[in-house]
Amino acid sequence: MVLGALIDGYETDCLTVADRGLQYGDGLFETLAVRDGAPCLWRRHFDRLARGADRFGIPCPRPELLLDECRQVAGGEAVGVVKIILTRGSGGRGYGPPESPQPLRILTLHPWPDYPGVWEEQGVEVTFCRTLLGENPVLAGVKHLNRLEQVLARAEWRDPGIAEGLMRDGRGRVIGGTMSNLFLVRDNHLLTPRLDTCGIAGTVRDLVLHLAGTLGIEVLERDLVRADLVAADGLFLTNALIGVWPVRRLGTREMNLEHLPSELLTAVHRVARLPDREGENDAGTVAAVSG
Amino acid sequence: MVLGALIDGYETDCLTVADRGLQYGDGLFETLAVRDGAPCLWRRHFDRLARGADRFGIPCPRPELLLDECRQVAGGEAVGVVKIILTRGSGGRGYGPPESPQPLRILTLHPWPDYPGVWEEQGVEVTFCRTLLGENPVLAGVKHLNRLEQVLARAEWRDPGIAEGLMRDGRGRVIGGTMSNLFLVRDNHLLTPRLDTCGIAGTVRDLVLHLAGTLGIEVLERDLVRADLVAADGLFLTNALIGVWPVRRLGTREMNLEHLPSELLTAVHRVARLPDREGENDAGTVAAVSG
Repeated sequence: MVLGALIDGYETDCLTVADRGLQYGDGLFETLAVRDGAPCLWRRHFDRLARGADRFGIPCPRPELLLDECRQVAGGEAVGVVKIILTRGSGGRGYGPPESPQPLRILTLHPWPDYPGVWEEQGVEVTFCRTLLGENPVLAGVKHLNRLEQVLARAEWRDPGIAEGLMRDGRGRVIGGTMSNLFLVRDNHLLTPRLDTCGIAGTVRDLVLHLAGTLGIEVLERDLVRADLVAADGLFLTNALIGVWPVRRLGTREMNLEHLPSELLTAVHRVARLPDREGENDAGTVAAVSG
Repeated sequence: MVLGALIDGYETDCLTVADRGLQYGDGLFETLAVRDGAPCLWRRHFDRLARGADRFGIPCPRPELLLDECRQVAGGEAVGVVKIILTRGSGGRGYGPPESPQPLRILTLHPWPDYPGVWEEQGVEVTFCRTLLGENPVLAGVKHLNRLEQVLARAEWRDPGIAEGLMRDGRGRVIGGTMSNLFLVRDNHLLTPRLDTCGIAGTVRDLVLHLAGTLGIEVLERDLVRADLVAADGLFLTNALIGVWPVRRLGTREMNLEHLPSELLTAVHRVARLPDREGENDAGTVAAVSG
């Protein structure tokens, strides 16, 4: 449900069908938590958008402009979701992009998703998806608009008790959830899948890596297969809206929650929910959490 | 350039940003040649669209409706291009599709591309792209809206003398051009790449397979690598707008055009350019060509 929309700064939800975002998925997006009218983890979201735009050759708007429009479309909502879509705009011939693209920015406001509160507190049930992730280094890590794999994976289950589905690449490596990144606890350190050929480098994943460093917890990027997950001391999922979900059940296996790094996860939750009023990095808020 | 647009039967080019075609590339498309106001290879285009819709769980409109709208948007153009986009419409929660999707159909009219006439007659120059194709059996063959790989591959060259770029998967198999299918001549038979894990099953590719059968020419689907192309007796490319382009130069190698199956290629050209007034299959027109 779209509660409000801004396209290139105008209040409209009408997009020309010539836009390359529709035609080819030629664009990027960010999904941001909004609290008290301001986006959370702003700098991490913007930085990822800018990296993706650079990789694909799409001119990226100034962060100040996007942040202003983000606040404008949020309209003071106490809690909500803002989605930013940046497309290469219209033009070009067929797949060939125009030499000087005029990118289009679309910001929309959405209601906060109604996930059961117990998922955050007591953990979630997770399944394995059959739909695979194709591997392509040039797309890997980027939050781009080509998301059919996630759509088809998410369509595999209707059971509202299952919170998320895990996806693997063609080589059997578990990459993450349809909408989340995955962390695994083993022997007091953390493991998370490599995202070198597929997957999205999540903002909260990035935050976990950062905060773990400040707390002296080792996190390693590894190739992980299903057996690694089943044998893990604990699992958790992250994204910008859920923050952290502990996994209490993986298929038929009950997972232990006792070995999750609770201090780290509490810090992640708190930072991921602090509105970034000034568009600063979360460095300041990290200090606040530690203090 | 969009000369005309119909969305769900209405003359408008305005799409809601909530549409899943934009949000996730959750949809399909067809690009049809139009002659004298009627689409060419109509049945092959519709059948591919219907197969893709079935695979992705998107309800497909009746062929009569799409054909009517195709003629309506074509508006009697002597020669042009109609693009049909079928999306899953709006709704659902995140990636999860709605249980009863209300698909959206978008038909647009575009000018005929201004390819040099000599390309068809004397052959084209072709390069190899660095951008790879990710492999995913559930997406393979389908003309869906996730086309970033093709966009990035087509952005690799600006030289207007190069007509097409060939794309490989991560295992080095050549799959086809950014916008075309590939055929290779070897010892009086034809070889064409398998499309089991990536690539698009083109309508003219399909026509070549069909007409080759009627002419007694063997066509085999094979794993083909760069060395197979370089050693080939001849190469040609196909799509719905170009019909057939012989390849006269592959990178630095001049290709021989003498061993191309000229009778077959002439027949393909003729059938691919016959407007399907009644929306029938091209079976009748095939007979006409043979006669």
